[in-house]
Amino acid sequence: MAGMLRSMVLAGLVAASGVSGAHAGEPVDLDMVARIRQEAFARSQAPANLKELTETVGPRLTNSPAYARSTEWAKAKLQGYGLANVHEEVYDPAFGRGWEYRASRVEMLSPRQMPIHAAPKAWTPGTQGQVEGEVVKAALKTREDLEKHKGQLRGKIVLLDDARKYKPNDKPDFRRHSHDDLGELQTFPVPEDAEEGAQQKRLAEYRKRQEFSRELNAFLAEEGVLATLSISSWDNGILRVTGGGSRKAGEAAGVTELVVAAEHYNQLVRAVERKQDVRLRLDIDAGFTSEEDLPASNVFADLPGGSKADEVVVIGAHLDSWHTGTGASDNGAGVVVMMEAMRILKAVGAKPKRTIRLALWGGEEQGLHGSAGYVAKYLADWPEPTDPEQKALPRAFQRGTGPLQRKRGYDRFAGYFNFDNGTGRIRGIYAQENHAVVPIFKAWLEPFHDLGAEIVTTRNTGSTDHVSFDRVGLPGFQFVQDPADYFTRVHHTHLDTYDHVVPEDLKQAAAIIASFAWHAANRDERLPRKPFRDRDE
Amino acid sequence: MAGMLRSMVLAGLVAASGVSGAHAGEPVDLDMVARIRQEAFARSQAPANLKELTETVGPRLTNSPAYARSTEWAKAKLQGYGLANVHEEVYDPAFGRGWEYRASRVEMLSPRQMPIHAAPKAWTPGTQGQVEGEVVKAALKTREDLEKHKGQLRGKIVLLDDARKYKPNDKPDFRRHSHDDLGELQTFPVPEDAEEGAQQKRLAEYRKRQEFSRELNAFLAEEGVLATLSISSWDNGILRVTGGGSRKAGEAAGVTELVVAAEHYNQLVRAVERKQDVRLRLDIDAGFTSEEDLPASNVFADLPGGSKADEVVVIGAHLDSWHTGTGASDNGAGVVVMMEAMRILKAVGAKPKRTIRLALWGGEEQGLHGSAGYVAKYLADWPEPTDPEQKALPRAFQRGTGPLQRKRGYDRFAGYFNFDNGTGRIRGIYAQENHAVVPIFKAWLEPFHDLGAEIVTTRNTGSTDHVSFDRVGLPGFQFVQDPADYFTRVHHTHLDTYDHVVPEDLKQAAAIIASFAWHAANRDERLPRKPFRDRDE
Repeated sequence: MAGMLRSMVLAGLVAASGVSGAHAGEPVDLDMVARIRQEAFARSQAPANLKELTETVGPRLTNSPAYARSTEWAKAKLQGYGLANVHEEVYDPAFGRGWEYRASRVEMLSPRQMPIHAAPKAWTPGTQGQVEGEVVKAALKTREDLEKHKGQLRGKIVLLDDARKYKPNDKPDFRRHSHDDLGELQTFPVPEDAEEGAQQKRLAEYRKRQEFSRELNAFLAEEGVLATLSISSWDNGILRVTGGGSRKAGEAAGVTELVVAAEHYNQLVRAVERKQDVRLRLDIDAGFTSEEDLPASNVFADLPGGSKADEVVVIGAHLDSWHTGTGASDNGAGVVVMMEAMRILKAVGAKPKRTIRLALWGGEEQGLHGSAGYVAKYLADWPEPTDPEQKALPRAFQRGTGPLQRKRGYDRFAGYFNFDNGTGRIRGIYAQENHAVVPIFKAWLEPFHDLGAEIVTTRNTGSTDHVSFDRVGLPGFQFVQDPADYFTRVHHTHLDTYDHVVPEDLKQAAAIIASFAWHAANRDERLPRKPFRDRDE
Repeated sequence: MAGMLRSMVLAGLVAASGVSGAHAGEPVDLDMVARIRQEAFARSQAPANLKELTETVGPRLTNSPAYARSTEWAKAKLQGYGLANVHEEVYDPAFGRGWEYRASRVEMLSPRQMPIHAAPKAWTPGTQGQVEGEVVKAALKTREDLEKHKGQLRGKIVLLDDARKYKPNDKPDFRRHSHDDLGELQTFPVPEDAEEGAQQKRLAEYRKRQEFSRELNAFLAEEGVLATLSISSWDNGILRVTGGGSRKAGEAAGVTELVVAAEHYNQLVRAVERKQDVRLRLDIDAGFTSEEDLPASNVFADLPGGSKADEVVVIGAHLDSWHTGTGASDNGAGVVVMMEAMRILKAVGAKPKRTIRLALWGGEEQGLHGSAGYVAKYLADWPEPTDPEQKALPRAFQRGTGPLQRKRGYDRFAGYFNFDNGTGRIRGIYAQENHAVVPIFKAWLEPFHDLGAEIVTTRNTGSTDHVSFDRVGLPGFQFVQDPADYFTRVHHTHLDTYDHVVPEDLKQAAAIIASFAWHAANRDERLPRKPFRDRDE
């Protein structure tokens, strides 16, 4: 212990980088940093684990058979690392039905023969073998649209979208943040006033969309539509596919819903528009793997704390993915980085004061369900909402009736760190307007400036599991990552595969996160919290 | 006529652009330029024609049924424009067999189920229905490789390539030439001395490759290999596919050869390398449409000349394409631009002194066969080669035995212009080291500076049909075009579709080419020629 104490330096005093002295006084354990970096760079298991996870387990749609295989895979690995309390825990006893994607064959038969690149939305039925049908175009966006097309669509394959003009990207597809980008990211845009009632309006619209989607599913099935086709939201042959139908037992799952590569979709629309006889053959081998809603679970593993073992630092990423790629950047990368951070800490013999917990979340892609379930159970929750707009929302976005109920773990919670913006290496961290953590994180990042991790921005970021913590006033953070090709090639696409991940990025991230977890677990005080304002307080 | 003469100005004298006076004296018919531009921009048929050609006719592999449809389509259009001498002419009575691609279904069955994006190389046999097999990896690059694997590959699906690391593009996928690019393009790199015997060595290697490829085809068929898989030469899910097997009746076409998307191919290699049991199901609906070698043809149409009708200016592009996209950039764009240039000239009532001939070439993708056949028949040719290295080459690259034989049309030939570098708009022209044409082309380009067409570079460019003219010492030129996404997305890929073409670029190119054809047909002298040095002179 003495050696460690000797090497604890006041990072602010040794900083040679010209960073202001704002973080003077925050101790950084440079001996541990060195040990972590060595382990992370010389003996990384992250790339090999990612290959296994994405290619022997495969993509991991929540509650699919492959998701179940992935929890087994993760638990075995974590047990192998000697971590404690490795277990799977249900966050929703009836999340939804299992579903699996096996094969997709789509061919134009007329006006000429050509193969079509397409993939089904999750939780829509397959075709039960080979089917053929005429292609027609029909916008089905309102009840009036449904009324108008009633009785006309039996046996048809329906193009729901217009053709879309190709938009070339004027930036390179794969990018690292420039110094200008990082500078810009450190400015805080003062928020505009929200329009009066905007939030309520958005909620009402969301509920309306949900309701219409149920009506549409029922309509499509009743009318005997063979399948619907939508245009992929990205060009260049990329299939960008999420969910459709319904995962809930007892709800109409509708008909086969396919997302089609833009370059192929546009050809179908134009052929229909020039009144050619357009026919497709479909054979979509995909569908439900359970009749009933199955329980959905997260995976946990602990590096137990010492003197403050009941205070917990959580590091996490989501184990679930969409189904057309292999879920490598989203979020296999995060999973193996977080597992690796735990492995490193164990391997270097770290004995943290507080408990460091790994969480691998499920149901992130459907609305942060796994992390929200954990927070609600152990940290804080609102009483069940009564408002119908609120009830329609995924749990992680609901505000219940009455003030936040703090659970036993709330006060003892010591911080959450998340990695879910693709493969891109860590360039800093979002402080989520928690100004008190800024100097702390600046100090912790200093030994990683040489790896490109430099900035602490006061900005907020969203769309992943730290939000489940942040919204109840707990310190939950996502790192600033290089954009890489996350939003040009791989996010929710069939190209989200191992090859698009940069192994060196995974090693860098694991080192930084291991260090952050160590420092959060060992500093005198738990991480400071920002002022929390409940809507009912 | 008087009006036209009045508007003929000495372009060098009116140039306000600071271009040197090198082209002073070359007359430019600005009245005709204005009429051409108006017709090109207000009433263009190029985009609509491209849609028809690529989507109602489809991709146009030489000698495929769709190629035959495309010649009919083109002749009907050209007759509709009122052009003369619209006809199809055979350049090779036995070019090869017909072949067609209809559908491709490839699925991994083990170790897990997933669809694989793949397409067959042209002139390889389909699978005659659904087949399944184990996937193995075997480099088959030498006779020793064949010997080594003899008897081991029956019923197997063979991965021929290693996995390949993903290489992100650090430039935008779609680019226009910057002023710096255009400046650079105007410098002439003095050629390095070729290594002694380098040319002969290359020829010998080419012949060796051809011979080995025949042996490999025979080996694969004899051994009962189910199919071979190669990795697509570009990443990002793009299928970049040309020919394999053999198009020649009587030659072994080998077995099904598939090109697989890199992101899928790499997964197969890694699964085999980790000794998993990898199985695929294939159903490739593709194959030969004739038993015998068929004749192959070009399409021609003339705008007949007046006082010098027997002197001919040719403008051309190639009608054939590869088979996985729809041949839109390569070279549907060129085809409709050239047809449009003819339409414009006819529509504005142009009465050229020399004949302006449109040529739509076949067999370009297999080695400039259509244009080489035309040149050999009407302009110049070498006596049949006797050297086996030469005999192995495609005709357009052969040098025969003895000196060049000039045909009747040689002296009267007045120039060839080609457009085959994708959708990118014209930014200038390659003078192919013909220094005497530089001031002439500078003058002709001047009224198109406002459309971005500015430079004349003395550099050579190759790989398309102007080479067939250039190599016999005739003035044949290809334009400098914006790169667009030609070499990042569409060249020989399944993304070479209408959507990746920019309609405005087609209009610009048609206007410039109509004007070039007009000026080449009407200037006092034929275009000057560069010194020609036959290898035997």
